[in-house]
Amino acid sequence: MTRLRAGVAGFSGYSGAELVGRLKAHPRLEPWLLEHRQDSDERPRPAGQPHPPQIPCTREAVRSEKLDVVFLATPAAVSIELTPWLLQAGVRVIDLSGAFRLRTVENYRRWYREEHSQPALLAEAAYGLPEYSRDSVRTARLVANPGCYPTAANLAIRPLLEAGVVDRACGVVCDAKSGVSGAGHAPARKTSFCEVTENFSAYSILDHRHVPEVLLTCGLEEREFSFTAQLLPVDRGILETIYLRTTGVESSDALMDVFRRRYASEPFLKLYPDGVPDLRAVARTNFCALGVKCDPATGRAVVVSAIDNLVKGAAGQAVQNMNLMFGFDETEGLL
Amino acid sequence: MTRLRAGVAGFSGYSGAELVGRLKAHPRLEPWLLEHRQDSDERPRPAGQPHPPQIPCTREAVRSEKLDVVFLATPAAVSIELTPWLLQAGVRVIDLSGAFRLRTVENYRRWYREEHSQPALLAEAAYGLPEYSRDSVRTARLVANPGCYPTAANLAIRPLLEAGVVDRACGVVCDAKSGVSGAGHAPARKTSFCEVTENFSAYSILDHRHVPEVLLTCGLEEREFSFTAQLLPVDRGILETIYLRTTGVESSDALMDVFRRRYASEPFLKLYPDGVPDLRAVARTNFCALGVKCDPATGRAVVVSAIDNLVKGAAGQAVQNMNLMFGFDETEGLL
Amino acid sequence: MTRLRAGVAGFSGYSGAELVGRLKAHPRLEPWLLEHRQDSDERPRPAGQPHPPQIPCTREAVRSEKLDVVFLATPAAVSIELTPWLLQAGVRVIDLSGAFRLRTVENYRRWYREEHSQPALLAEAAYGLPEYSRDSVRTARLVANPGCYPTAANLAIRPLLEAGVVDRACGVVCDAKSGVSGAGHAPARKTSFCEVTENFSAYSILDHRHVPEVLLTCGLEEREFSFTAQLLPVDRGILETIYLRTTGVESSDALMDVFRRRYASEPFLKLYPDGVPDLRAVARTNFCALGVKCDPATGRAVVVSAIDNLVKGAAGQAVQNMNLMFGFDETEGLL
Amino acid sequence: MTRLRAGVAGFSGYSGAELVGRLKAHPRLEPWLLEHRQDSDERPRPAGQPHPPQIPCTREAVRSEKLDVVFLATPAAVSIELTPWLLQAGVRVIDLSGAFRLRTVENYRRWYREEHSQPALLAEAAYGLPEYSRDSVRTARLVANPGCYPTAANLAIRPLLEAGVVDRACGVVCDAKSGVSGAGHAPARKTSFCEVTENFSAYSILDHRHVPEVLLTCGLEEREFSFTAQLLPVDRGILETIYLRTTGVESSDALMDVFRRRYASEPFLKLYPDGVPDLRAVARTNFCALGVKCDPATGRAVVVSAIDNLVKGAAGQAVQNMNLMFGFDETEGLL
Repeated sequence: MTRLRAGVAGFSGYSGAELVGRLKAHPRLEPWLLEHRQDSDERPRPAGQPHPPQIPCTREAVRSEKLDVVFLATPAAVSIELTPWLLQAGVRVIDLSGAFRLRTVENYRRWYREEHSQPALLAEAAYGLPEYSRDSVRTARLVANPGCYPTAANLAIRPLLEAGVVDRACGVVCDAKSGVSGAGHAPARKTSFCEVTENFSAYSILDHRHVPEVLLTCGLEEREFSFTAQLLPVDRGILETIYLRTTGVESSDALMDVFRRRYASEPFLKLYPDGVPDLRAVARTNFCALGVKCDPATGRAVVVSAIDNLVKGAAGQAVQNMNLMFGFDETEGLL
Repeated sequence: MTRLRAGVAGFSGYSGAELVGRLKAHPRLEPWLLEHRQDSDERPRPAGQPHPPQIPCTREAVRSEKLDVVFLATPAAVSIELTPWLLQAGVRVIDLSGAFRLRTVENYRRWYREEHSQPALLAEAAYGLPEYSRDSVRTARLVANPGCYPTAANLAIRPLLEAGVVDRACGVVCDAKSGVSGAGHAPARKTSFCEVTENFSAYSILDHRHVPEVLLTCGLEEREFSFTAQLLPVDRGILETIYLRTTGVESSDALMDVFRRRYASEPFLKLYPDGVPDLRAVARTNFCALGVKCDPATGRAVVVSAIDNLVKGAAGQAVQNMNLMFGFDETEGLL
Repeated sequence: MTRLRAGVAGFSGYSGAELVGRLKAHPRLEPWLLEHRQDSDERPRPAGQPHPPQIPCTREAVRSEKLDVVFLATPAAVSIELTPWLLQAGVRVIDLSGAFRLRTVENYRRWYREEHSQPALLAEAAYGLPEYSRDSVRTARLVANPGCYPTAANLAIRPLLEAGVVDRACGVVCDAKSGVSGAGHAPARKTSFCEVTENFSAYSILDHRHVPEVLLTCGLEEREFSFTAQLLPVDRGILETIYLRTTGVESSDALMDVFRRRYASEPFLKLYPDGVPDLRAVARTNFCALGVKCDPATGRAVVVSAIDNLVKGAAGQAVQNMNLMFGFDETEGLL
Repeated sequence: MTRLRAGVAGFSGYSGAELVGRLKAHPRLEPWLLEHRQDSDERPRPAGQPHPPQIPCTREAVRSEKLDVVFLATPAAVSIELTPWLLQAGVRVIDLSGAFRLRTVENYRRWYREEHSQPALLAEAAYGLPEYSRDSVRTARLVANPGCYPTAANLAIRPLLEAGVVDRACGVVCDAKSGVSGAGHAPARKTSFCEVTENFSAYSILDHRHVPEVLLTCGLEEREFSFTAQLLPVDRGILETIYLRTTGVESSDALMDVFRRRYASEPFLKLYPDGVPDLRAVARTNFCALGVKCDPATGRAVVVSAIDNLVKGAAGQAVQNMNLMFGFDETEGLL
């Protein structure tokens, strides 16, 4: 069997390292490290552990090694710089940054407070949430891998909106908590151990860059959606507690039925009919776990959605998208 | 200066131990340990550390040692058993359990799913949230010390409701996170280290016993208030993220002004005009810290309220109530 | 391919759960749960997750389902009760408890402070540290799976003693630190989150039950070996810092050479030539990682040995032993 | 009562912040912040919290504000730069860095691998371990506040050496574990939450800069002392497990008697006659806690010594030294 050659730029960050690990275990792939901006890993390495080949992240190297696909686990600005020439070189690109998720330059400017230099690519990119965009991902040259928070939110909220059981006038509240690896690999005061342990904090209240991905995917207005990101003293995992008012459903089970119908054939959804998942239910897996509790008397409902931010929220979903793009089984390398 | 004699029943639990520590440091008090049901502390003790005197929790002992006040850091059932004879013995009682917080037997039955054998005391008890019940606490024989979650919630929500700036039709959402000490001292699977570390979980969704304390204090209907309790992998602290729609206020600062006016002379409120507090802002203190963020365009608002669950959420507030009951400075032993 | 039928008693403890997970992923095995003493798992379970079949842990059930091998992740007393009839029923047994590790009843009485009712089986059992007892494991009916602490200690100390580079007069010090899962699954005060987080403590100083496994495997006298077990605020992992004086070696690299020669063909040893491993180097793997630092001027040397207590220290090593017993590749299901 | 004016340089680091907190609570002191190199604290601050006055760290400011004493919680190089002119300005100096602890330039060069530009001050400085240098501290212009690791080690080892109960031929092993705050305030990969949580690691094995402070204080040769520093996943605290062979003592209690006699009148030693302390026994206190276990048959002994690295290991001991220098009660501000 010929194996695809897959490059990874930004391999030393947390998402990048997770990605390299997943790609090494994938039977259809041969991973290559693309050295763009060096990152030293100071940990001592054991003897005799093989590492993927490492080449410079240049057009020449990518061409001469005949890479088929490149994953970008780089900051948005770097992704915007690398993507055009990678596509020109005939390589398909899966970008894990926020660079290509928001469709229009106006939307990008509004949330990222920067100009976007590649509006055509922004418009072209497929938003890679497989449960809702499988077909466009299959044929895409460029896939924008979703943000971690929106992945958990969209998989929980969109089916309920589509089923027409949400009272939109009261809005949807998403209280999100993330492990520290979601803040990235660069040392910073706010992610240092002494600041995080025995602590918990909210940030980017009502103004997080991930909000527009939920608005776009769910078709919500900004006034209908309140979102708070919060930092948990754990390494990895996202748990979102989502509040809404229902219309026309009378029990927790009736709400769960909406998920059962929508996700019956989805390989990476785990439904909790008798409770709600905790963070650990999905640790180190590509699953999104969903549970729901509804008060029939008043229609108040709470949905709990949990993912591993580095897997379904980043590297795992990127592999899932790659599997779709190259016609592999969608779960290859992920179970 | 004559010092009051203050007994503590349930002194080996987390709230009880915090209470004993605070009472030992209080200049106007002499703490006594009331041995009700033994709890062994297996840790080795250093030589030469003085401990408060320990007596049995009986009418005779309480009388012969002339205790002035007794703190009950016991389960609700034990508090219901001890309170009548303590009051008869002329001792004032501050109860840290849920036994006397809900005013009526109907309400108690609804939320605690048990009958209450002391309806007269339930009706008599003063609810000890000093910021809202200072006068009734001063003269009370029996004070029901508030629950930890409701303390953080009521101090954040009630001023906004009283100021008339909340759109009640959309309801108030309180997403609450607590450290593990809030679950008490008895060993249990769900509070064991291996279950809690690197995890986060929700429990008692829409059905927590602390909910009625918010309904009673804020005057909210059950359908107007959604509450989720969640377990943080930290020892102590509560942070609540509260979502509501405002009416008639146009900025974060205007909302903060409501808190400024209401709490101008309160010794234990910390207001964050330029952000929101994190859990550590209040660790080991009797403060409640409040911050707010409001989107003027849509009226969506988020309030963050933080306390230490063992201090303002339990032992510290109990001491604050005791200070009021005996005419001491309200902050004595707490700064 | 016919698959072995492997039963697991004690499947709900931490080692047992790790074992079931490994066995489910093993291509040559079909796991069966043996219900001996029930343990409820209170966590909500997702829909549609297949579990291994569960049968009572009785002679009849074991015979009628034709189990080939049974893993005992049970307390020592339970293992002593189950092992005789399992062997009589023609089933091979791998015991993860301390029941059969110490060879003689005298030694068992000395360290476990109990009588042993099965001296013949105690004498018969093969001590399952594959790196030092591969041949006896292959043919054993009963394998005593080593303790977690001794596994890390023996793999670090024995090669140096065999190479004759240790000054035994000065003794060997082993300062051991373990994650909390090593203390087992039963709720207890000392393993509750609030006691462990932000804490670190030593226990069983100079008197731990695992000590004799090192004495037996390394041929050390009790006076030559000092051992302290300590509780780390982490879920899993053991790191041991081992101190000794060398004779006749002149550098860290010369000491590392002893390990290189001894472990050249071992699949589960990871050597760190340029530093020492940390706990995370072996998390969730069956590896033992070794690093060494030696001061040539004085002969003082420090060896760092790290394993995952639930894998190489328990379930993984049990699978490794099972692979040997049934002629599978030793690494099957473990890489 | 006139209060001393005490400046703090390096006030935004962990030791500096602990120091400012202690000084604010000290009845005989008025703290001043000396702005040397700015450090921004990004956390939102509550309204209305008073802070000490802040002045530039210059000769002019120090003179015009008439500071009596300055604490340097700065890197060694900065301390060497500031100390000469502070002393010339008539200010007494307590330096928390390693700049003035090692007595000779040769020793400083050997362990810090740098030249020392102030050999006269290095020779003059009093080593501020009050239990062993109370008299020289009282009259010193310049006090070198001890390192955190040596404080715990010296208080445990020196009494045993002085009592002549240690077999020095076998050497003394000190296995030390520290919370992350000991690594300082500057963001770094190795102290980031994701690297530290669920991990444990050794560093500077046999080669730590704190080693010579133990050699000098205890009178040990380098070949007699093995030391490993290790990073615990906790915020604060040091626990050292110390191994030695005894001569002429026959029980744990006989060893404890050595400590009892030596430390009978010491205000900050906590002895554990029936066990050993854990890290939490000393958290947020200025105590050093000691326990011991001895095997009478073989003379192997283990001493456990615990301190809070930011209090007795840094800021608290600095205040203790200041109390001595100015004739205050030694425990003022520390109990």
